[in-house]
Amino acid sequence: MKITILGGGGFLGRKIADHLARTGALGGCAIRELTLFDIHAPAPLDAPFNVTCIGGDIAELPQAAIPPETDVIFHLAAVVSAAAEADYELGRRVNLRGNDALIDACRKLAKPPRVVFTSSVASFSGGQDAMLADDARQMPGNSYGAQKAAAELILSDASRRGFIDVVNIRLPTICIRPGAPNKAASSFVSSVVREPLLGLTTTLPVPESFKVWIASPAFATAWLLHAAAMDTSLLGTDRGLNPPGLCASVGDMLDAMERAMPGARALVQAAPDAVIANIVGTWPAAFAATRAPGLGFVRHTDLDALIAEFLANDLEPTRMMRGL
Amino acid sequence: MKITILGGGGFLGRKIADHLARTGALGGCAIRELTLFDIHAPAPLDAPFNVTCIGGDIAELPQAAIPPETDVIFHLAAVVSAAAEADYELGRRVNLRGNDALIDACRKLAKPPRVVFTSSVASFSGGQDAMLADDARQMPGNSYGAQKAAAELILSDASRRGFIDVVNIRLPTICIRPGAPNKAASSFVSSVVREPLLGLTTTLPVPESFKVWIASPAFATAWLLHAAAMDTSLLGTDRGLNPPGLCASVGDMLDAMERAMPGARALVQAAPDAVIANIVGTWPAAFAATRAPGLGFVRHTDLDALIAEFLANDLEPTRMMRGL
Repeated sequence: MKITILGGGGFLGRKIADHLARTGALGGCAIRELTLFDIHAPAPLDAPFNVTCIGGDIAELPQAAIPPETDVIFHLAAVVSAAAEADYELGRRVNLRGNDALIDACRKLAKPPRVVFTSSVASFSGGQDAMLADDARQMPGNSYGAQKAAAELILSDASRRGFIDVVNIRLPTICIRPGAPNKAASSFVSSVVREPLLGLTTTLPVPESFKVWIASPAFATAWLLHAAAMDTSLLGTDRGLNPPGLCASVGDMLDAMERAMPGARALVQAAPDAVIANIVGTWPAAFAATRAPGLGFVRHTDLDALIAEFLANDLEPTRMMRGL
Repeated sequence: MKITILGGGGFLGRKIADHLARTGALGGCAIRELTLFDIHAPAPLDAPFNVTCIGGDIAELPQAAIPPETDVIFHLAAVVSAAAEADYELGRRVNLRGNDALIDACRKLAKPPRVVFTSSVASFSGGQDAMLADDARQMPGNSYGAQKAAAELILSDASRRGFIDVVNIRLPTICIRPGAPNKAASSFVSSVVREPLLGLTTTLPVPESFKVWIASPAFATAWLLHAAAMDTSLLGTDRGLNPPGLCASVGDMLDAMERAMPGARALVQAAPDAVIANIVGTWPAAFAATRAPGLGFVRHTDLDALIAEFLANDLEPTRMMRGL
């Protein structure tokens, strides 16, 4: 089996690569080649199969990133929410043109590969009172979400035409992201717990009552791996899935953090930010997510498990990465 | 007021241009300049204002097509359904890249112009049993519809950002189109009545019980003109509208034709076509269309009026055009 990860240098891409290197297989098939592609060539990976690392512009995706007989492509390359809002051209180039380039590369393969596309909760509207049904319309309030929803349409059509075999996973906001704050408008969702767990102060741009639709890195990784191996004939024409994430208020998250590390909550300071609040305020706080569990996507566990996962997997690597 | 019609050489573009030339105004404002753009430069137009005709590729839209101080742009340029299905590259180039080129040209203007975008019933699924709500999800079963739905998302986002001021009108299948059969999968919807009204035989690729969501050229033109002058603050963030068309079975249409011209029905011969039936079979047969009438979009009248409109406006021009 040959696998490519677009955005293979990002933290979710790396989690998937690490999992593949550890198990050596996907869906019961042995892996013989993994290609990691990102804007800068990803760092090498120790694995029981060949690993090729390529850097480049996804809008001009080199065919080497999708070698002959590629079976599975994880497509995680993206310009994230606040960055796509700040730079319209760049968002369009990566989030739309990059998508077309992927389709064109796949059309050169003898057999349509499975493509696992990471779409986003940001492609929906609804706000704090929402509990969206699985067939809810995507009416994004930000450029990143609009580009993701448009990409889903184009990938689903390419799938219908037999160029690819896509599963569009609308990931919740990932929490707790390891590493440092980034340019996503939702960066605070992780920072507000990650920074205190590192012993650092942080700010909260929204009220504590603000609810978010989240998933831990381990759940997101598990869903993407499941999407890569699932039977797509069960999806019919609807290739989009809202995985069963967790709806939590920021206050609930801070409570769970405090239970895990008493005193941590004192490191969080309110600092309302209208720009951030306007972007994330349009995202829906919850999904019914009834379809995905029936297709084998595991339901998310509670906030205490989410905090424990970070402490076990990502606290030390984050300390090392940031020189703390 | 300065107006541009992209796809100004097509039959709906021409109907709009003719209306503007006749009235000299739009929404109570006098027109001082009209630009008609199409793949081949549209024929000149006799009008009480300046008319410029430009030919070119919309994916590389020349700024001259959107001159400084353009107030309104009708965006009707498209590669239609069966053509976009037959040529993926061409559909993507015109229906998606052309859209991006339009946004880029609009960003160079001092004031965001009104853009009236013709989206389509083909951007929805649902089939024969559907009666779609105004907030129904667009889940197209054809490349043309997928490109239209994706373009709506990108145009709505550009509108939110203040680059343009868009209204996306999802036109029903236009019936009765003047002229000759074209490459749209829905071409038969017009042919089945137009050809007999011209005294010609024709074929029917679907059963007579097959229902279609249609609008006459006069209603489609009236809706697009209304969208060009309406108060878009009433739309909020949802820039898409399903205008109040007509749900009719092919049999109903043939009955109305027979009432207008006894004996015409005998010129229609059944000739089932699975390719056509598969494309149009996914389109919804009806919409509730409750939002648009409240915003001033006129409800469609009955089939007898639709036939009468063709006989009054388009029969003779069609005869002349086709040398009949």
